[in-house]
Amino acid sequence: MRRRARERDNVERRNSQRTRTEGGGAAAQGGKDEANGAVKAVPYDWPYDGALVPVQTALLVIDMQHDFCGKGGYIDRMGYDLSVTARAIEPIRRVLDAVRRVPGFTVIYSREGHRPDLADLPPIKRWRSALAGAEIGSEGPCGRILVRGEPGWQIVDRLTPAEGEIVLDKPGKGSFYATDLDLILRTRGIRKLVLTGITTDVGVQTTLREANDRGYECVVLEDCTGATDVGNHIAALKMITMQGGVFGALSDSDRLIAALLRLELGASEAGVESQSVAKAAAEGLPLGQPIGSGERGG
Amino acid sequence: MRRRARERDNVERRNSQRTRTEGGGAAAQGGKDEANGAVKAVPYDWPYDGALVPVQTALLVIDMQHDFCGKGGYIDRMGYDLSVTARAIEPIRRVLDAVRRVPGFTVIYSREGHRPDLADLPPIKRWRSALAGAEIGSEGPCGRILVRGEPGWQIVDRLTPAEGEIVLDKPGKGSFYATDLDLILRTRGIRKLVLTGITTDVGVQTTLREANDRGYECVVLEDCTGATDVGNHIAALKMITMQGGVFGALSDSDRLIAALLRLELGASEAGVESQSVAKAAAEGLPLGQPIGSGERGG
Amino acid sequence: MRRRARERDNVERRNSQRTRTEGGGAAAQGGKDEANGAVKAVPYDWPYDGALVPVQTALLVIDMQHDFCGKGGYIDRMGYDLSVTARAIEPIRRVLDAVRRVPGFTVIYSREGHRPDLADLPPIKRWRSALAGAEIGSEGPCGRILVRGEPGWQIVDRLTPAEGEIVLDKPGKGSFYATDLDLILRTRGIRKLVLTGITTDVGVQTTLREANDRGYECVVLEDCTGATDVGNHIAALKMITMQGGVFGALSDSDRLIAALLRLELGASEAGVESQSVAKAAAEGLPLGQPIGSGERGG
Amino acid sequence: MRRRARERDNVERRNSQRTRTEGGGAAAQGGKDEANGAVKAVPYDWPYDGALVPVQTALLVIDMQHDFCGKGGYIDRMGYDLSVTARAIEPIRRVLDAVRRVPGFTVIYSREGHRPDLADLPPIKRWRSALAGAEIGSEGPCGRILVRGEPGWQIVDRLTPAEGEIVLDKPGKGSFYATDLDLILRTRGIRKLVLTGITTDVGVQTTLREANDRGYECVVLEDCTGATDVGNHIAALKMITMQGGVFGALSDSDRLIAALLRLELGASEAGVESQSVAKAAAEGLPLGQPIGSGERGG
Repeated sequence: MRRRARERDNVERRNSQRTRTEGGGAAAQGGKDEANGAVKAVPYDWPYDGALVPVQTALLVIDMQHDFCGKGGYIDRMGYDLSVTARAIEPIRRVLDAVRRVPGFTVIYSREGHRPDLADLPPIKRWRSALAGAEIGSEGPCGRILVRGEPGWQIVDRLTPAEGEIVLDKPGKGSFYATDLDLILRTRGIRKLVLTGITTDVGVQTTLREANDRGYECVVLEDCTGATDVGNHIAALKMITMQGGVFGALSDSDRLIAALLRLELGASEAGVESQSVAKAAAEGLPLGQPIGSGERGG
Repeated sequence: MRRRARERDNVERRNSQRTRTEGGGAAAQGGKDEANGAVKAVPYDWPYDGALVPVQTALLVIDMQHDFCGKGGYIDRMGYDLSVTARAIEPIRRVLDAVRRVPGFTVIYSREGHRPDLADLPPIKRWRSALAGAEIGSEGPCGRILVRGEPGWQIVDRLTPAEGEIVLDKPGKGSFYATDLDLILRTRGIRKLVLTGITTDVGVQTTLREANDRGYECVVLEDCTGATDVGNHIAALKMITMQGGVFGALSDSDRLIAALLRLELGASEAGVESQSVAKAAAEGLPLGQPIGSGERGG
Repeated sequence: MRRRARERDNVERRNSQRTRTEGGGAAAQGGKDEANGAVKAVPYDWPYDGALVPVQTALLVIDMQHDFCGKGGYIDRMGYDLSVTARAIEPIRRVLDAVRRVPGFTVIYSREGHRPDLADLPPIKRWRSALAGAEIGSEGPCGRILVRGEPGWQIVDRLTPAEGEIVLDKPGKGSFYATDLDLILRTRGIRKLVLTGITTDVGVQTTLREANDRGYECVVLEDCTGATDVGNHIAALKMITMQGGVFGALSDSDRLIAALLRLELGASEAGVESQSVAKAAAEGLPLGQPIGSGERGG
Repeated sequence: MRRRARERDNVERRNSQRTRTEGGGAAAQGGKDEANGAVKAVPYDWPYDGALVPVQTALLVIDMQHDFCGKGGYIDRMGYDLSVTARAIEPIRRVLDAVRRVPGFTVIYSREGHRPDLADLPPIKRWRSALAGAEIGSEGPCGRILVRGEPGWQIVDRLTPAEGEIVLDKPGKGSFYATDLDLILRTRGIRKLVLTGITTDVGVQTTLREANDRGYECVVLEDCTGATDVGNHIAALKMITMQGGVFGALSDSDRLIAALLRLELGASEAGVESQSVAKAAAEGLPLGQPIGSGERGG
């Protein structure tokens, strides 16, 4: 197909050009540092303008709450398979372990939930949740569904925020609407976002789109996300990579951790990775072995 | 699967309950009018609270610009097949013809595009468009790509806005960010949105998510949308209907036009429709015969 | 002066017209109810379109925190006279007592304050507070200055929010920026705001301007506000009434309470009030006897 | 008064500290450059963190439209004296002349105005303008009042934007609400704003407050502003300087131009200025000889 061939050519041409000429701030450090610091990703290595700079970067951990991946929570009560969202927990934990070793890196957790009096719950949202069998605000095995302060609304134990990490509450799917996220990011001079969390097609994708329109450069880590439907998960990731990365880039936990390691060690990159990424880019597919590959669509 | 059976039961129970008890403003007119005025949709007839009320409703026609569906425009230059976005033109035209006969209905067109000096173009967005082979701001056969005032940026002739219809310019994918859309809607007391336009997974989906977080109740008309990738088109529509309609409802041009006709005539609904819709709802699939069904994924 | 004479004529003409023709929702109840329900104010009786309708109205109580009116708090540490802000406490308390008797009336409290890690504190704001002798985040007699959770940041005891009333935290001067206020108001269908709190020229005035641009109709209750400088207090109130009420209307606690009483009793208005208001309107001055009148300016 | 003495001490201590320790980016150039580049202002020299850096700075020229300062326009029809707003024209012109010689400096003009169909005009705003004798949207000597595209809505001839300067349209008083201003500023990496325009207490003050909450550091040039009421003009400027500069700093056209000159020439500052500024700071008053001083209040 002519589009893919052309895009592949553009990627190759750009990646080599970038080493020489693109550099804004970070990239100005030159080709060697850039090779060390960038995260392998499709459709382009991230960030686009050179090395990962911790103080300009935040890790977003979106809605990793019991309600979205735990027994008796919101997602479970709607009848969805929990393994598809719970799969993100361990990869995110590994990313957190790596990021916490890097001075200057900001970590931000979002929690979807409503005020106990439901003053911030649009009537249509409440009605739909009832339609799906799990009315927001009603009592469930984990307390009132999607209500702030309830057990189901808590971030899962494995991902408990550490001292100095930021937690924000949001009433909607996007992390920017009706929150102080944008203020926090601009106050710290952060322009790059690493997105993880659940669900891929709802909370993560909405936040990604808001961030993108505001000029933040984003990468989503595939194995650190999950959706109630495997087909939607794959599609939500694929959408990111269209049109040269219309919403950002796609990578995974191993590749981010590798980039952080190179940053720590100043060591050179592992050659084996670049091959698999080039192949994935050429095929227009998500990296690695995403869950449920081969059975696309619900 | 237990989720689907439960959801179908909920739909049936809710739809019958609604006739008796849900009614806010519009629905207070009673079961008969409601049956006349609602739009057949999945996973629920739209709007949820009764009949379509023209003065509370806006039709959004998103990014139907030459750049997104015309020869030599942005999408064409990236190498995508134009038919998948151009398919939306005629159905939208039919919807416009119907809506324009209804007093009080608001029509709003969005145009994605940047200031000629590109002051509102984030560097990452520009870089990606170059990566995809169609740098925003560069000269093309339709003028400078995605720049306001250029031929490629114009709304296509078949959908030229009529006198009294609203056009808004936006720098991003979402129609709410950095625009006066929310102000216009609240000024007119509009709480319900009918979304059409291109592309399904980018401009339409982003606007839908912004609207949903702000409490607007949305329906997307399947045949009035289109995406650069058929798999993404189908997935973007399916995402809407998850979790009882997490972003709204899904319908098509015929069903909206039928509802408008019933509104005009006060006539009873066509029985044949409700059957096909019930079947689609039970199967969790988009309505009608979407383009490219059977060849999912790119 | 020709402006004032013209404006007075307009007020009189409009007020009589309004009884006959203006009515949207509330005013449709007719002239008698309207006379009962409106709040006497300058430069026009409020709301402009008829009677006060509790379910469409919210009382905002802005930043009535120890830091802004209590011993050892932020304002005190900067060296300002506390009586000018503390003066608002009792009138607000009376308004709360009255409003709490009215079913359907929403009460919202804002608190200015920052996250304990100061992630939401712009560097310039911190620097200025240090310049003024009360650095935000530093330890003081009431805990860390303007930090959430500290004693100084609490709402003063006399105005403790009641069960069912809403409290929101904000990092800035405006109550709309980086908060869920707009979402709450639109979710409840609220279009009218009664503003009280401190300080008149900072938190109250900024919130008023944000609300006004979003189309909310506002009234400020003079005796329920206060500023660190008497001249600024008077000026901030006068600004509201320019240009036919460029930011809304100006009234006081007695007049709001009287309107609420008329609403409760369905009784006719007290004639004595309308005279003093007409006189104040003609003179373009704030109502009543504002603190420090005669010694304008600092 | 103890507050003033303390604040003056703080200013002196801070100003000397700043030279040694405060420096972020710009200030890192050291005390000598800072002395050259900062703008003399109250309550602190601006910007707080060192020298004026053109590429991080934008000049805002707010609402310098015929409707606000020209014969037959909106302000004139309400009966206000035009000289108080027109006074800003020549000083702004001088600032523009100076700024245009500085490479990298961004200039942005705002225009308040509504869509010809008034879809973005809140009913209350329309009603009030009628109350004031100049209904928005109605025909006047300069075309329809405050409507985009009309003669009265145009920026005055003396301040016609030059090639490459940015113009934005806004429906409200604030320049951030429902516009792309924030996107433009963040895209260019601008964090400092120089505010000019009319009116001091409405368009300028509202924009200033929005900017401040978003973390922008602002300076207002006194002689480049004006209000319909002299007392409001003075009060609106004084409010800025409270609490260590709660909304920013206050300077004037001469001082900004002098700073730009020093930037151009690398020359040392004029000693005469610092004396008058120190005196003004000590007295807590606006700089220079503001119009109508001595006749405070309307």
